[in-house]
Amino acid sequence: MTLIEKARQGQLTEVMKQVADSEGLEVEVIRAGLAAGTIVIPANKHHRQLRPRGIGAGLSTKINANIGISEDYCSIETELKKLGVAVKNGADAVMDLSTGEQIKETRREIIKNSTVAVGTVPIYQATVEILQSGRAIVDMTRDDLFNTIIEQAEDGVDFVTVHCGLLRAGLEHLKKEGRVSGLVSRGGSFLAGWMGYNQRENPLYQHYDYLLEIAREYELTLSLGDGLRPGCLADATDRGQIHELLVLGELVERARAAGVQTMVEGPGHLPFNQITTNISLAKELCKGAPFYVLGPLVSDITPGYDHITAAIGGTLAATAGADFLCYVTPAEHLGLPTVEDVKEGVIAAKIAAHAADLATGNQRAIDRDRAMARARKNLDWEQQFNLAIDPEKARRFRREHNPRERDVCTMCGQYCALKIAEAVTDDD
Amino acid sequence: MTLIEKARQGQLTEVMKQVADSEGLEVEVIRAGLAAGTIVIPANKHHRQLRPRGIGAGLSTKINANIGISEDYCSIETELKKLGVAVKNGADAVMDLSTGEQIKETRREIIKNSTVAVGTVPIYQATVEILQSGRAIVDMTRDDLFNTIIEQAEDGVDFVTVHCGLLRAGLEHLKKEGRVSGLVSRGGSFLAGWMGYNQRENPLYQHYDYLLEIAREYELTLSLGDGLRPGCLADATDRGQIHELLVLGELVERARAAGVQTMVEGPGHLPFNQITTNISLAKELCKGAPFYVLGPLVSDITPGYDHITAAIGGTLAATAGADFLCYVTPAEHLGLPTVEDVKEGVIAAKIAAHAADLATGNQRAIDRDRAMARARKNLDWEQQFNLAIDPEKARRFRREHNPRERDVCTMCGQYCALKIAEAVTDDD
Repeated sequence: MTLIEKARQGQLTEVMKQVADSEGLEVEVIRAGLAAGTIVIPANKHHRQLRPRGIGAGLSTKINANIGISEDYCSIETELKKLGVAVKNGADAVMDLSTGEQIKETRREIIKNSTVAVGTVPIYQATVEILQSGRAIVDMTRDDLFNTIIEQAEDGVDFVTVHCGLLRAGLEHLKKEGRVSGLVSRGGSFLAGWMGYNQRENPLYQHYDYLLEIAREYELTLSLGDGLRPGCLADATDRGQIHELLVLGELVERARAAGVQTMVEGPGHLPFNQITTNISLAKELCKGAPFYVLGPLVSDITPGYDHITAAIGGTLAATAGADFLCYVTPAEHLGLPTVEDVKEGVIAAKIAAHAADLATGNQRAIDRDRAMARARKNLDWEQQFNLAIDPEKARRFRREHNPRERDVCTMCGQYCALKIAEAVTDDD
Repeated sequence: MTLIEKARQGQLTEVMKQVADSEGLEVEVIRAGLAAGTIVIPANKHHRQLRPRGIGAGLSTKINANIGISEDYCSIETELKKLGVAVKNGADAVMDLSTGEQIKETRREIIKNSTVAVGTVPIYQATVEILQSGRAIVDMTRDDLFNTIIEQAEDGVDFVTVHCGLLRAGLEHLKKEGRVSGLVSRGGSFLAGWMGYNQRENPLYQHYDYLLEIAREYELTLSLGDGLRPGCLADATDRGQIHELLVLGELVERARAAGVQTMVEGPGHLPFNQITTNISLAKELCKGAPFYVLGPLVSDITPGYDHITAAIGGTLAATAGADFLCYVTPAEHLGLPTVEDVKEGVIAAKIAAHAADLATGNQRAIDRDRAMARARKNLDWEQQFNLAIDPEKARRFRREHNPRERDVCTMCGQYCALKIAEAVTDDD
């Protein structure tokens, strides 16, 4: 039996209890959400070090950090450093998006060292191996693709992005309407190339039942990818994107019927005023499945600062119902992130997740901010550092910006409002 | 005649034309907004180098950078560097919030060197001078305060923050309801201390007509400060804050009747879900006066990253109707910002302003993002740098993150979706 099936039968498993504890909720809430499909717990049977976390309705907003080697940078050691920095700073999951040499070794090391769920996009490996074997992407067979998924599931991958909803009809919509940026999903572009050349439907859609069988076997969570996601604001919420969402809604229901956990992925690049509509539509069409967004980025012109642009979009998305935010780093659109970029990206995403949790009434989040406000009022610097999202940076900034040890800071010095106001508001 | 009076008489002045040009709008739009009080153009007659900009309904969102010396850091040269960095990166105004020695010299140098509007909080200087003369803040006289305002107006200050709406009744609300952080406005805390000790009403309220006379004389724009603004999320939207807003609404109408340009200032710290309500309420109670917000910060726990937290709140605020965003730097709550902090703060605020302009349909903003999307699609890196919010950083990141010169980037290398998708979406 899969986790969903156990939940439906009313079983309260160890995994459900761990997730309930980590959220400060009753285990029944977790069980009911799993049974309904509004909560997922990505947890492959073979991922031994995992401390499972839940993603979905009623839970705190979770964040994911993408790591992984590329052709130009392939040091497993560096990727493990990124993993460490990501988890230390609050990532709830990582995705290994490796495309270079040593894909398998990198993945296995990441899974072995990760206490958080690990996701992948299996078509990357399938594509790299096809090219390594001297064949073209368009020659990929069903078995090339599904055997890679099985291999990765066997390794302990907890969730996989699979672009099952990208159909020829969706590509037709895209061509008819026209786009500024075309396709920007890597997995989507591989599949679209394959489909166009072979004049056949997407194998991940055609053999979806086989995919569900594999997922059942390993308790692999499917993250239904959005191959037609917009790559710029001008392309947002177009017919291609929404067509794919219709298909994803169907696939969510088929997965639930098969007892397989499913999330749905969303944009991408969206103007701020289209975010709430996109999230509401996705939640409605996909029957409340946990929604996983990349950003969304609310402008295209911010290379070097896309972590900020994504945090803006992510806060509104999570407030409007998105459950899982994929980070964006300052290196987005420019190159593979460094360890430092990973840290910046994770913290920006964490701020978005936390701000949304405050907005939607998560009591733990509210209590933490209230404790910080008290520490600030009391000019208790140690406590402020302890409660800060990044104690190290806060400590370093205070040290570097203040020439003398004092209870106030250099911004106002003796003109500190908090000190002056004490006299006004406290004594009568 | 003041600018408002000229606008009401149907005159189209040079200043109105310059603002219309800079916005790409008809000058009649500017004139009508000035006449109605929904647009202000802070432009002191004595500020010669000023290139005037408009703030208000229908215009692009503007941003302000706070600079100025403190007791611990008092190098005019450094402050002029901050001014340069702020303007270069897109600040539409700066406020000189100096409190240390050399207040006057600093202000005069900033005004002399600034092409953007310069604002101040005159009570800071009045307070510093009282203390320097060996008296206590509570001994300040009406003339101490107003003579400082006149001196600053004479120097060419374009707008002043004056906490005229902080009344004893507002302080009573605050005391009765209780607060976690109390008063966090410096100007507000000085005034509250004075009012409590002297058992008298706020002199800026009592002598508001005198203030209007001074403002008329110099075409000085009043920025009605929010002395009771919340200093943490827990204190947001409380009775003290809203009471002050009621008073500010009255004062806006009195200023308009006197032909004086007025903005209204707002929070501060606000949970993301309270931002739209706050902006709508302020716009309604203050008869559509341009609204100037500090942040707002959507969490209290992000010292070192408050520029991001403010950009999140600022985007929603400006989308909901705020017209003018005061930046927040990474040093907020920790110390006086360095030149580098000023740059980070300005860019984060600029991202928020731009994202809001995209969301509210500003065509110039939309066109710039579309041009960036095209450049990205074409892998035209030079054009991407030129259109980027910070060309230098984008260029440096690409150089540092990419070992070889290629058309793609290290994130995907040969697996670049844009390159692969070309074949799919372009050729048939």
